[in-house]
Amino acid sequence: MDLSRAAAAALDDADPLAAFRARFTGVDDGLYLDGNSLGRLPVETPAAVARVVKQEWGRGLVGSWSSWVEQARRIGDLLADGVLGARPGEVLVSDTTSVDLYKLLVAGADARPGRDVLVCCADDFPTDRYIVAGVAASRGMTVREVDAHIDTGLDLDVLAAALDERVAVVVLSQVAYRSGALVDIAEVTALARDSGALVLWDLSHAAGAVPAELTTAGADLAVGCTYKYLNGGPGAPAFLYVRSELQEQLRQPIWGWFGARDQFAMGPSYDPADGVDRFGVGTPPVLAMAAVEVGARITAEAGIERLAAKGRALTELVVALADAWLTGYGVTVASPREAPRRGSHVSLAHPQAWQLTQALVDRGVVPDFRTPDRLRLGPAPLYTRFVDVWDAMDRLRTVLAEGAHTSYPTERARVT
Amino acid sequence: MDLSRAAAAALDDADPLAAFRARFTGVDDGLYLDGNSLGRLPVETPAAVARVVKQEWGRGLVGSWSSWVEQARRIGDLLADGVLGARPGEVLVSDTTSVDLYKLLVAGADARPGRDVLVCCADDFPTDRYIVAGVAASRGMTVREVDAHIDTGLDLDVLAAALDERVAVVVLSQVAYRSGALVDIAEVTALARDSGALVLWDLSHAAGAVPAELTTAGADLAVGCTYKYLNGGPGAPAFLYVRSELQEQLRQPIWGWFGARDQFAMGPSYDPADGVDRFGVGTPPVLAMAAVEVGARITAEAGIERLAAKGRALTELVVALADAWLTGYGVTVASPREAPRRGSHVSLAHPQAWQLTQALVDRGVVPDFRTPDRLRLGPAPLYTRFVDVWDAMDRLRTVLAEGAHTSYPTERARVT
Repeated sequence: MDLSRAAAAALDDADPLAAFRARFTGVDDGLYLDGNSLGRLPVETPAAVARVVKQEWGRGLVGSWSSWVEQARRIGDLLADGVLGARPGEVLVSDTTSVDLYKLLVAGADARPGRDVLVCCADDFPTDRYIVAGVAASRGMTVREVDAHIDTGLDLDVLAAALDERVAVVVLSQVAYRSGALVDIAEVTALARDSGALVLWDLSHAAGAVPAELTTAGADLAVGCTYKYLNGGPGAPAFLYVRSELQEQLRQPIWGWFGARDQFAMGPSYDPADGVDRFGVGTPPVLAMAAVEVGARITAEAGIERLAAKGRALTELVVALADAWLTGYGVTVASPREAPRRGSHVSLAHPQAWQLTQALVDRGVVPDFRTPDRLRLGPAPLYTRFVDVWDAMDRLRTVLAEGAHTSYPTERARVT
Repeated sequence: MDLSRAAAAALDDADPLAAFRARFTGVDDGLYLDGNSLGRLPVETPAAVARVVKQEWGRGLVGSWSSWVEQARRIGDLLADGVLGARPGEVLVSDTTSVDLYKLLVAGADARPGRDVLVCCADDFPTDRYIVAGVAASRGMTVREVDAHIDTGLDLDVLAAALDERVAVVVLSQVAYRSGALVDIAEVTALARDSGALVLWDLSHAAGAVPAELTTAGADLAVGCTYKYLNGGPGAPAFLYVRSELQEQLRQPIWGWFGARDQFAMGPSYDPADGVDRFGVGTPPVLAMAAVEVGARITAEAGIERLAAKGRALTELVVALADAWLTGYGVTVASPREAPRRGSHVSLAHPQAWQLTQALVDRGVVPDFRTPDRLRLGPAPLYTRFVDVWDAMDRLRTVLAEGAHTSYPTERARVT
């Protein structure tokens, strides 16, 4: 592999997604490799949000509800078709990832009466593990935490050994938040089906970066975040997915009016709506949804296969440069080395990862830090160039060579 | 009472809140009497939202988290001090009203082990009744629905009769969504304390219209909406309140990372944060929160006592004009007649309320319809003038006199 900057520039010249970079703001201000935490602002978004604020709210007032009431399903269908490989009426934008996880986990556990075990991954994102623990505690269920390798992810044999007739629901991330390790949804779904368990996927670090192909994989339940690779904005509402065939069997625990049939009849008792609408709860945050819609549309337009291919090539370059340049400074690749087994981010391990993070920020590179010793680099296929990766890695090499990071604080303030 | 338009104009001239009208957009476009459903857009809001979108997200990216992470508490404290009569650290902006109701209801029921009854009001807003029913169903608890008069609200003797040692939590609205009937928080809290039950207040139709004075009243738990009288925008995030002395005893059921202590440590197990933060769940919708902050600040600036006084005067005018002008057309006042027993909206009953609603909309008046026969008029003290009320009632009188409403559809489409 040619590791020159010119070779990286040649990859950009050949990039079929190169034109999408111009659809995002600030792309020439620094090297942003944290799109896996918070995606960049699309150029169209300020006007889309302003239109909802000024026209729909300011002028239309309650008359705009005829449009807003369809928003959660409309964006859901856009994600289903363009990003997740699901069918119309299977995806709803609603609440936060944590609340959606809770709703579908309780719904799934209720649908497997007599089973008293929830399975999750010991290395999964904290909110996933916490939600599982909370639901288990409230129902007197047991949690089986499956160990995953911190760098290379979950071994399916280990997962298989944890599955038996006691397991109601398995909660797993398609892409591990720290290492970027990718799990095969179809394989896991088949494994879980054999034991009669449902799998609830967290697609937060995957949606917009790798295909989920939920229908083909036979996936039952999923949730995910829209503020990472989907570029929906800070704290943007999450999405949830329930396979059509399961929807009528499942009821979620938070019986809000937006999940009720014929909501404005305001009837005496809760009767869940047909279809995916029954997994809604309260009034959706309309202003925030407007930004989600823009991000979802751009992602769908780019095409998830093309995005994933570019993500693999970008992270391949991170790995190759880390191997070539950084090994001597004690940096190791803490992600799967085979591109098809990764999402669109790579972790590098170094004992002074937090100091390196600060030094990079001061040099115009925004990486992500994960405690205690991981530098996470998430090149977003929609707007990150190969030369951006090259330049960021070059600056990291320089910091390490000069020891510039050693003058930064070793203790992290509460928020970064 | 002088019912001339000149008398209404004189009330506007003497209105200490008159200047706040200029802080809202569109106030000269039609007569909007649905601020109790969706408040108007403050003039400052588009710029505040645009700043968060373009500067904080677009430029600041993840660096803006140092500001965003304080947002839910900062706006909560603003509401606590300026609107709700609560203390710092008792209010958090989070999720939707429905989700917040669920969280605090489960937390409250858990804090009263051995008690197996939840009490709610048979005439309360649907989502409140549905959430109560869902929580009761999942825990094998019984719901006692207390009857309230559809027009004049809850009789405290009826409530008292429903309270005994089996009751864990009582869910009540301070202001009834249909009639506007106001319940005294202090009286109900004292009643419930005697039986050992907690009261969970829904302040959705009250916050920004009447004082809650939660500390003085000794209130334990509350939630509420920010898109009505607080003018936070469609689907704006809700607030929750937990009395300081109770916070450490309560745990909510959705164990998300935003409710965890030292969230970015991402530790192995969920440990709820100290204080009101433990009632948070997922990443807050930052764009939507920016609009809530503007609305909360304007409300606090106007002062809740002044707002309530003007609300009483505005609704007094509605009642007086209805009595004087509309009785002959079969319209009756379906709200408490004593101003101190009302929030800031009044319902009028008429068998053709839906047709009247449509006729009014075509004549530049936006009221609210509540099935089956209620026309709800919510003059918002921040921006509704007395002459607006006079003009709207005058148009309603004209519609009725001419029978113009009879040519409109009698069946309501799903969404209005």
